[in-house]
Amino acid sequence: MDDRSREDDADERRAATDGGSSEPIGRTEWTFPGGHVPVESTGSEPEMVSHEKLCVLNAGGKMARLEITLHYADGREAGPYLLAVAPERVRHVRINDLIDPYAPPLGREYGFALESNVPVVVQATRQDTRRAENATLSTIAYGDDGR
Amino acid sequence: MDDRSREDDADERRAATDGGSSEPIGRTEWTFPGGHVPVESTGSEPEMVSHEKLCVLNAGGKMARLEITLHYADGREAGPYLLAVAPERVRHVRINDLIDPYAPPLGREYGFALESNVPVVVQATRQDTRRAENATLSTIAYGDDGR
Amino acid sequence: MDDRSREDDADERRAATDGGSSEPIGRTEWTFPGGHVPVESTGSEPEMVSHEKLCVLNAGGKMARLEITLHYADGREAGPYLLAVAPERVRHVRINDLIDPYAPPLGREYGFALESNVPVVVQATRQDTRRAENATLSTIAYGDDGR
Amino acid sequence: MDDRSREDDADERRAATDGGSSEPIGRTEWTFPGGHVPVESTGSEPEMVSHEKLCVLNAGGKMARLEITLHYADGREAGPYLLAVAPERVRHVRINDLIDPYAPPLGREYGFALESNVPVVVQATRQDTRRAENATLSTIAYGDDGR
Repeated sequence: MDDRSREDDADERRAATDGGSSEPIGRTEWTFPGGHVPVESTGSEPEMVSHEKLCVLNAGGKMARLEITLHYADGREAGPYLLAVAPERVRHVRINDLIDPYAPPLGREYGFALESNVPVVVQATRQDTRRAENATLSTIAYGDDGR
Repeated sequence: MDDRSREDDADERRAATDGGSSEPIGRTEWTFPGGHVPVESTGSEPEMVSHEKLCVLNAGGKMARLEITLHYADGREAGPYLLAVAPERVRHVRINDLIDPYAPPLGREYGFALESNVPVVVQATRQDTRRAENATLSTIAYGDDGR
Repeated sequence: MDDRSREDDADERRAATDGGSSEPIGRTEWTFPGGHVPVESTGSEPEMVSHEKLCVLNAGGKMARLEITLHYADGREAGPYLLAVAPERVRHVRINDLIDPYAPPLGREYGFALESNVPVVVQATRQDTRRAENATLSTIAYGDDGR
Repeated sequence: MDDRSREDDADERRAATDGGSSEPIGRTEWTFPGGHVPVESTGSEPEMVSHEKLCVLNAGGKMARLEITLHYADGREAGPYLLAVAPERVRHVRINDLIDPYAPPLGREYGFALESNVPVVVQATRQDTRRAENATLSTIAYGDDGR
């Protein structure tokens, strides 16, 4: 039994301890069509830099393994970017910090698709400081279950 | 019969009077993954201070009892914070006003999970006045029913 | 047969002509918990004044009759405000333009509940010009069907 | 067999190769009630001009054919605007770039209804630079399946 199986077992025991009752809140497939990472900023690093980030909450008792793909208008895609979110944690990831296997192009319109092995909830948030002030937007992504 | 039972009974009678027909609008489990309370502000107290708040509408005839937990990236959590929302009322709570049993850390990325004994609707709103001007965002949280 | 019945009949014929197939897109019950109408503005009337508005799209073939109630934190409520939205039209209404039967209090936290006789889609949008610049937010409200 | 049929066949083969298992994520009917394209701007073309755009992600293996109609308060409508979104691509379209069969009126309140032959996900985003700074908002549109 390798480390990963042991971790999964621990996850399962924890879930069972929680009552073993029910699915954690969320969905396993998410999309966000309206992506755009502004490439200019007027703010100081890192807090006031323009960015778009993907925010994941794993409310369940099992490690969530995510696979994220960025889609563009011209048919190229970037990814897959693999991320893990531990049980009962959030993870916020700036799109420009996705660099493995390679950095995605910025400043272009994109959308992301995300798949998870367990239900999670996904939100996307943009901070735009191209001008002297700050503009923000956010929305829960669109979620569904693979059928 | 203690006060609380009497209050619940009154709630039930009121619901019955409403036709006793149907569930009030909403869900019993809610999550918001993209939390961040800016710790700096340029505005006057209390109106223009940076904050993030959680807005709950209880459209039904029964008192709603909420339990809120804040999740972070590093596995610690804050809470539970217990709140009540009376029938046919809203309650807006700033995250930095959650101080019982203890104040949560601010300025860090977080998400919240909220459970209610009756269906409610939950929205989260941020006001960011770190710069001279104001940026706002808002989204209905992600809701589901415990299964 | 009065005018109203004739109009409904016309609506029904039109719906039947559309194929008579299916429900129009939307829901019949909507809520928005996070309401706040800023009472100060730095902008010119009417375009840049701070406001919060409720936006309804009636995609179906029948007149939509809406009943809107504003809920507050202290248990008072304002309304009901009655509005109609013609087939295949939108209607955007600023909260501060709801004055019949009486103007609701502004500058206080509120939420709205909306019921419609036919499915509609509801969104709420805020423009905040208390500071020299402009901040905006928007979200589709939370919708459900009466059960 | 014309070009279009061949393209559809290729789409179908690709979908089958993907496992042929399941519907792509999304819905076939979408609406956004809260549209408003600010007609003034303080920014440079094209990046900082005020605009509202419609963002579509087609996560499936078939070409998506969209039909968009803009609805107004006075009963006139604009469109239909026909757009295609290739498999696994996004398409972001500014409302003021919809000019065929004719340009829609700007500066007026509107809502859009969108139908697609295959499931897609739709988001709408506004950038408002009427003032010296920038305000943004965004929300996933309201989606449903034709019934």
